[in-house]
Amino acid sequence: MFAVTILGNNSAIPTPDRHPTAQVITYNDQLILVDCGEGTQMQLTRYKIKRSRLRHILISHLHGDHYFGLIGLINSLSLLGRTDPLSVYGPPELEEIIHLQLRAAATVLKFDLQFHPLLPDKTGFLLAEKDLEVHYFPTKHRIPCYGFSFSMQRKKRRIVPEQARVYEIPAAYFSRLQEGADYERKDGTIVKNDWVTLPPPKGKKYVYCADSIYDEDLIPHLQGADVVYHEATYLHGLLERATDRYHSTSVQAATLALKANAKRLLIGHFSSKYTELEPFLEESRPVFAQTELALEGVTYLI
Amino acid sequence: MFAVTILGNNSAIPTPDRHPTAQVITYNDQLILVDCGEGTQMQLTRYKIKRSRLRHILISHLHGDHYFGLIGLINSLSLLGRTDPLSVYGPPELEEIIHLQLRAAATVLKFDLQFHPLLPDKTGFLLAEKDLEVHYFPTKHRIPCYGFSFSMQRKKRRIVPEQARVYEIPAAYFSRLQEGADYERKDGTIVKNDWVTLPPPKGKKYVYCADSIYDEDLIPHLQGADVVYHEATYLHGLLERATDRYHSTSVQAATLALKANAKRLLIGHFSSKYTELEPFLEESRPVFAQTELALEGVTYLI
Repeated sequence: MFAVTILGNNSAIPTPDRHPTAQVITYNDQLILVDCGEGTQMQLTRYKIKRSRLRHILISHLHGDHYFGLIGLINSLSLLGRTDPLSVYGPPELEEIIHLQLRAAATVLKFDLQFHPLLPDKTGFLLAEKDLEVHYFPTKHRIPCYGFSFSMQRKKRRIVPEQARVYEIPAAYFSRLQEGADYERKDGTIVKNDWVTLPPPKGKKYVYCADSIYDEDLIPHLQGADVVYHEATYLHGLLERATDRYHSTSVQAATLALKANAKRLLIGHFSSKYTELEPFLEESRPVFAQTELALEGVTYLI
Repeated sequence: MFAVTILGNNSAIPTPDRHPTAQVITYNDQLILVDCGEGTQMQLTRYKIKRSRLRHILISHLHGDHYFGLIGLINSLSLLGRTDPLSVYGPPELEEIIHLQLRAAATVLKFDLQFHPLLPDKTGFLLAEKDLEVHYFPTKHRIPCYGFSFSMQRKKRRIVPEQARVYEIPAAYFSRLQEGADYERKDGTIVKNDWVTLPPPKGKKYVYCADSIYDEDLIPHLQGADVVYHEATYLHGLLERATDRYHSTSVQAATLALKANAKRLLIGHFSSKYTELEPFLEESRPVFAQTELALEGVTYLI
């Protein structure tokens, strides 16, 4: 399972039905939370996503609609008795914001909160878990802001059982085969690994572009992604406003997905001024047909 | 109109249906927000309470379930174009918590945010607006915590129209009468004010006790209140846990209301462990019959 679940698809001003940005990446049995707007902990409860399985929280930037729910979530995890460590990645100022609020409440967390600052304008490796690697890259916004790229690449080769039987390889040896080892039969002959296995399945890639003005510098990071999430705060009629505010439009998000040769595009971060979201699709799909709305509570397989 | 609307009646860990503490005092056409747990801005929207009418926000203490929604509300008020000043009252550390987050977002508020620190263990006058006065007093909790007492005392005397007619007092003079002035007739005779007016209506008093262990030192502040809000985090079977955590039980809240000779008691701040709230009433009413549950979205006249 490699999927993203949308918890919030709204931009700055939340409403009871549309929440600020947060999404959960599921890989194997673990979860990564990406951004954490106000109310995220309630959204996790609403959609029955187990907070205890969270291992990492990535915060793209310090506009409130992307992180005001973080301190409440951290606080609740501690009240619920969490003891597993939790890693938080975000702009450096976030560390003091968290600790100032913990100190004011005389709260001592029951778990180890490991803070990893994202350094301005850097690109690079963020974390690895089993078959998943996460990288980050800067986007162009009013304040320092980062996108995140999630690559799931299974390392184990796939055994072809019929072939393994032909060479009489015992099942106990299969895990070695998955790692790429050859097999030596009792008579001393060697069974080459690639006679009985296939390469690991092709990797999958999800890219979260956070908030950004239209920026073709992002293309290398999106190149060939299975799913790209890009903000579309405004319909294209408000292109000027989008540009002024370092945001993008429906058409711009679609254009970038097209140029990056992405397979699918999820759009979100819709301005509260829009009560209907269908027009976003109507504008995006003529440019990039595989566009979908990021809808709250919906899980998109990658 | 002098009333309190409950926006959240839950304690520390919020759920999609039960929110952390927040309530709105309505007096005349203005609003005072008392505490501001995560999601308060969405609750204001849900219950169609106009954020623009907020003048003062009082924060009782710096446990997150009482203030984690404040920065989001302040941010949204600015995004919505507010220019009227807003006063925030709370423990001193709150000022830096707000400003650190505004700085991190490079946000310059469009309105004047006036911060008024509540000083440890003080009791006294907080603010006055038209006919309303607000005082504060310390409660006993794990960290510095304050309750707030709202006294609505109309200052205008009530004119008895029939009497005013007897003395031929022109309507243009009525506002002077309301202020207590006598009237001099053309023939020089004096009409004493109390011949034609009655005293202002009796004042009303609402007292919010925030979070507190059972504490009879609060009684002088609650004395004779029309409505008292007191926390009842636990049913009485968990008295020991309540005491350990500086919280109160259903029975303790009722006992305090009884001893303070309050007219009505609202209980709230229920632990998330309780899915049914009726048992709180069943325990409180035998002690103090005029107990009601603080229910989200409900407005209680004072």
